[in-house]
Formats: sequence, structure tokens, C-alpha cells
Amino acid sequence: MRAEIVSIGTELLLGQIVDTNAAHLAEEFASIGLSCTHRQTVGDNLGRLVAALQLALDRADLVVAIGGLGPTQDDLTRHALAEVSGQTLVLDSRLEAELRLLFASRNLAWVDSQLSQAMRPVESESLPNPNGTAPGLWIPVGSEKVLIALPGPPRECLPMWTEQVVPRLAVRLGKGVIHSVTVRTCGIGEAVLAEKIVDLLEGVDPTVAPYAKPAEVHLRITTAAASPAVAQEKIEPVLNQLRERVGEFIYEIGTRTLQEVLIDELRDRRQTLSVAESCTGGGLGARLTQVPGSSDVLMGGVITYTNRLKTQLLGVSESILDSVGAVSPECAEAMAVGAKDRLQTDWALSITGIAGPGGATPEKPVGLVYVGLAGPKGCQVRECRFRGSREQVRERSTQAALVLLREALQSD
Amino acid sequence: MRAEIVSIGTELLLGQIVDTNAAHLAEEFASIGLSCTHRQTVGDNLGRLVAALQLALDRADLVVAIGGLGPTQDDLTRHALAEVSGQTLVLDSRLEAELRLLFASRNLAWVDSQLSQAMRPVESESLPNPNGTAPGLWIPVGSEKVLIALPGPPRECLPMWTEQVVPRLAVRLGKGVIHSVTVRTCGIGEAVLAEKIVDLLEGVDPTVAPYAKPAEVHLRITTAAASPAVAQEKIEPVLNQLRERVGEFIYEIGTRTLQEVLIDELRDRRQTLSVAESCTGGGLGARLTQVPGSSDVLMGGVITYTNRLKTQLLGVSESILDSVGAVSPECAEAMAVGAKDRLQTDWALSITGIAGPGGATPEKPVGLVYVGLAGPKGCQVRECRFRGSREQVRERSTQAALVLLREALQSD
Repeated sequence: MRAEIVSIGTELLLGQIVDTNAAHLAEEFASIGLSCTHRQTVGDNLGRLVAALQLALDRADLVVAIGGLGPTQDDLTRHALAEVSGQTLVLDSRLEAELRLLFASRNLAWVDSQLSQAMRPVESESLPNPNGTAPGLWIPVGSEKVLIALPGPPRECLPMWTEQVVPRLAVRLGKGVIHSVTVRTCGIGEAVLAEKIVDLLEGVDPTVAPYAKPAEVHLRITTAAASPAVAQEKIEPVLNQLRERVGEFIYEIGTRTLQEVLIDELRDRRQTLSVAESCTGGGLGARLTQVPGSSDVLMGGVITYTNRLKTQLLGVSESILDSVGAVSPECAEAMAVGAKDRLQTDWALSITGIAGPGGATPEKPVGLVYVGLAGPKGCQVRECRFRGSREQVRERSTQAALVLLREALQSD
Repeated sequence: MRAEIVSIGTELLLGQIVDTNAAHLAEEFASIGLSCTHRQTVGDNLGRLVAALQLALDRADLVVAIGGLGPTQDDLTRHALAEVSGQTLVLDSRLEAELRLLFASRNLAWVDSQLSQAMRPVESESLPNPNGTAPGLWIPVGSEKVLIALPGPPRECLPMWTEQVVPRLAVRLGKGVIHSVTVRTCGIGEAVLAEKIVDLLEGVDPTVAPYAKPAEVHLRITTAAASPAVAQEKIEPVLNQLRERVGEFIYEIGTRTLQEVLIDELRDRRQTLSVAESCTGGGLGARLTQVPGSSDVLMGGVITYTNRLKTQLLGVSESILDSVGAVSPECAEAMAVGAKDRLQTDWALSITGIAGPGGATPEKPVGLVYVGLAGPKGCQVRECRFRGSREQVRERSTQAALVLLREALQSD
């Protein structure tokens, strides 16, 4: 089954918005076995919109139109879809009632232009939008093809895809339900990982698709079945294979990020954490505190960008700084131990390194970073040699520190 | 003159890459007066690529093909462009020599598949790529139209657009040179700013285009002229108008970020800075240390996520924490003063607030944030009430702290 995305909006053509919806939906297509050979972007112009949708419908079985469902005169997607599907646009009185109710409940003034959001092609089905006012549309075209309309804001579009479109597609494809599980790994590169599971990546049902994220690789396992329970049964053997072959690198089967998993694990243990950062300048603390409720675990930290503050705030001895310098395993250890002791936490992570572009010496090149961890059973330090820009080195350093903590918690 | 982008690559259709090039180039189109009505994305398939380029060439005067210029069998852009332009593909011996030299100078092994990067349609001109191996192409089609090919990686594509394509376009359009200046503002919203300069935004030559960035608005002034000096002369009166009407909000005319401007300013004054962060958890320090060489100015900071550490590391009195609490102007002041004194810096910024989603009370809602600044002449605190997600509140808090420092340095 072929699918095509038509992204709609003059603001996309002006470059005011980056089209992240298209990339997200394309990933979704791949995971449920829809093939995608084209994507189009058009502005808010009825003639061009109709032509683009017609072209897409000529070459694909499923066309997803994103954007242009708002209440203003610019929003022409409904009219274009009616024209392309050869259906009349009708006012859906149930949709109108729901919209009026929504506006009343939010104390928003009703304007009659909102009525356009209650219009739909006569043979279409509307798709509820829990995060906005514009409902989506599911429009069968003949017996073979489907046009789908979703609103442009990602926080409306993406949940509607998952909750409204995918189940309908599963029924249409005679597949019952389509079910995915994401396995998140860290501490292993994509190429090495792929080598260990090459046969699984070639599997047809379930499919296993790798997604390389910054410093992590996620594996998405997808299958279709009569019910979620049956789908999960089909996925379980693949999960077992993954656990067996690369289990040590799996930090999550589900949706939690690495920092969420670590915060949850430490909260369960009633243990606390602090950070001592040099070249990342606060980036590790910022990443850990992305997690709501991280204050249960993360007490705080120090950013010691200068040697003076490494000594003053963390007690790093001047003899270490004078002899081996701030970018050294000895300094990383002293920083972690100092943070643990002075901030009185069970664990402390430290990072010291050369993010570049300046500051390198022949012995200490850009990308040389030491991450340290002090814990209840002592301290360990890992040497990393990263490539890339200043920001990439800093991001990878942060990740390396979190990976070190994860490994320690695992073997603890 | 109409322009169209054709983005090429199966990885785009699979959603593995978000197409940021397309958005950047679209902004560039708008700034030099090219109108853009369509964008297409196609995979690495010769037939579809040819059809997409042909469609683009039918409806636009300028077609920019991005990606597919690498040395592998997947990279078919050159072949498709030759076919669409009706030109033979020839091996350019000068390009070949340059490529062999490049490989030798980087100690890379030469493989003959690299020769494909020295192939070009016979009437085309190759465009140098200082950041990669794949040259771009400028291919006149008849006397009216031009096909352009640029490599996919943004750090190759975007400089080549600016340095190679724009000057050729200016000549073609009989405009001499196209010249842009970016004015960066902070501390003023897009709507208020637009109201103050509505006549300038409607100007035709130079054009003034606003770009809303997170918590900042940038204005791009663009004109064409016989020479850069003449262009600058045409831009100067607009700059003067902007300085007169919104000068207090302009932090940079050029390319430096807000944190770069602040680090440069403090370095010039030989003054130092520290940070004391609660709800941003290190994000302010991380942003300041994005700037290479920031260690001249930023000594370090403390992340005091708990009340205990606010007292221990910054000397915030327990009476403040007990009476008005950690999210209060008093606490923000005590944090800034504490950081300035204990870390011995000339300036110190503090942030304390409720990033959400938890932690709110009726008196202290999510988004209530105090930013403080201690400096040579005393301390000041600003109350902010932000909307948005946890990450948005944190990002805006960081920005508010930097804006506070900028204003203090300006009036100092």
C-alpha cells in the first residue's frame, strides 16, 4: 500500500516552520509497512492544493493532507478535499454542536467562521481532536483509496494519527490492530548493534526498524494482529531475542528517556544525585531536570568552569590541577567525590574535558573527555574520545555520564 | 521569478532526517524576492526523480535540487538533471583533478566511484563546496530557466547557497549583488515590534522581514545593488529608522547570538560572571558555555535544586525560605548575591521559579519565575509569568536572565 503526505501552508513555503510532522509520519508509515515515494508541500491556494492532492491520489492509495483545517479564509483543505473526492461539502450538525460546546466550556467567543470546522465531505467520517478545535477527516474515495486530513500543529496531528488513523487503517488493511513496541538502547553504536541482530532487522512480521537518535539507538518492533494481546504475543519472542543478544544495552522497553529511567530508578531506591560539570557548563543538570519531579532525586550541582572553583567548590587539590591538569581522570574523580561529599548525595556525576574548538594540546585533543561517578561503593572514571563540533562533544559527554550511571545502577 | 525546491533522498521519505534545508532555503527565497508555491520530496529513484524535476521545471524558473550528489549508486541527481536539461553528462577533468587532490590531502583512499562527483551536464558550471567532496551544479536550461544542485548536508548546502548561488542569481536577475543584514532584538514580542515598524515591513526595497526565534525576533533587511557598498548605503537609512524606533531592543546587527554578545561585552570590560540556577537546572550555564572562549568570562555556577543547597551553597537565609519560599523575589536576590560573593565574580545571574507541570500553588502558578542579577552597583530582580510547557518555561527563563543582564550592561 502506497502512502503520500501533502503538507499544506504558505508558512511552510516561506520557511517559517520546519515540517517535522512529515518526518514523524514518514517514520510511522515505515513502521506499519506503508511505502512512501513522494511528498509534496503546497501553499494556501485552492487550485494548487487540488492539483497536488489529485496528483497524490493518482499515485498513492492513502493520501494524508496535513494543515489548512483552521477557521480562516486561508484554510482551504476541506474545500480541496471535497473537490478531489468528488463529494459535496456538508455542515455536520453534530460537529457544530460539539464545537459550540467546546467554545462555551473554554469561555471563548463564538464566531460564525468557526462553522467551517464543522463542514465535511458528505461521505467522510470526522476524526476527534482532543488537543484542538479542528477535527480531522477520513474520506474514502471509491473502494480502493482514502484521503485523510489532519491539523498542522504537531501536538494535534501526531496523537490523531496514532489514536484515530492507525486503528482505522488496521481495519481497512484487514489487520485487526497494528501494535508497536520501542526498545531503547544506549552505550552501543548503530552499526555494532545492527550486526548483532541482522536477522531480526530482516524479519517481515514483526518488523524491527532501527532509529538512530543522538547517542542512542532505538528499535521499533511492529506487527499486526487480531487484538493487542495477540500482537504482544507475536512481539514477545523478538523482545526475548533482543534481551538475550543486546540486553545489557537496553535501558527501556517503552517511552521513557534515559534521564527518566535513571530518575525513576534512584527515586525507587530513595537515593539522591548531584552533578559537577566543567566543559558541559550545566548541560547535564539541565538534561536531568527536564524530567518533571526530578527534584526528588537531583539535589543540585556545581558548574566549575575554572580551576579556582574546582578547588573552592569541590575540593579538587591544587596538586592534581598543577600536575595532570583539569582534563584528567584524577580531576574527574576528585570532582565527583567532592560533589558527593559536599552536596551530601548518594551519587555524583562529573564531567571534565575539551569541548573545543580551542583549548587543545598535542596530548589532550578536542573531544577528550573524562566522566566520573562517585557512589556508595566508590568512584570510577571513564575516558571518552569524541568527534564533532563543540555542541556534539558536549551532548555526547552528557550522554556518556548518564550511561556510566546506568551501568553502575545495573550492576549494583 | 518562481523558485521550487526538490529535496531528494529516501532517508527523507523514511523520516530519518527532518528537512531543515528546505525551510532555510525557503527563508532565503523570500528574502531575495523569489516566490515559491510548491516543494517536492522524492526518493533515490531515477524515474521519479526525473518526473519531479520536470514538473518543477514546468512551473518554476529556478529549481533547486538538494541531495543525491554523493558517490554511491543511490546518488542519481546528476543523471536526472542531465536528462531533464537535455544535456549529456561529461567527465570534467579539472573537477577530477581537484577531487584527487582533496583525497590525497586528507589521506583518504581514492575509489573510482568518486569519479561520479566529477561528472556534470555539458553546459553546466560546477559550484565549489569548501565543506565536502560533492561540488554543486548550476545548469542553464534554455535562456529562461536554471536548475541548481546542492549537496544534502546543511553545513555544505547552506554556505554554497549564500556564497555560490546568490551572487550568480543576482547577476542573472541583473541586480549586481544581493545583500542582507540581520538585526537581532530581544525583550520585545513580535506583534509589538511589528506595530512600531509596520511601514518598514511593507517596504519593497530594501525589504524588511521578521523572523520569530524562540524568545527573540530577528529582522532581515535585504536589497540588491551594483555593489556591496551601494547596497549597504541603501540599507543604512532603514537601520537608522530601526535604531530610532526600537533601538533599545536591538542587541546585535550581525550574526552573534545574545550569549555571544554578552560574553564579548564582559570580556571587553574584563568582568566575570557566575550563575545560580534552580528551575533551569543548569540550562543558563549550558547556554552561556555554548560560546567558545566563554571561560574567559563565566567562572562557573551552582545548581541549587533544593532549599538545603540554596542555603548551603549560596547562603540563602532559612528565614526567606520559611517565610516567602524559594520562588520569591527575595530568594532570587539572595541567590544572585550569594553567587556573586561566594564565586567571587563581578556579576551573577539567578533563576528560581515553577517550571511545572507540578509544584504550583494558587499563589504561585506554573510559569511564575524570578530572575535576579547582582552586579557592581547592587541587585535587581524581575518577575516573569510564562506560559507553555516545562521546557518552554525553562527556555524563556534562561532568555529572561540574559535580557536582564543585557539591559544592566547597557545602562551601566
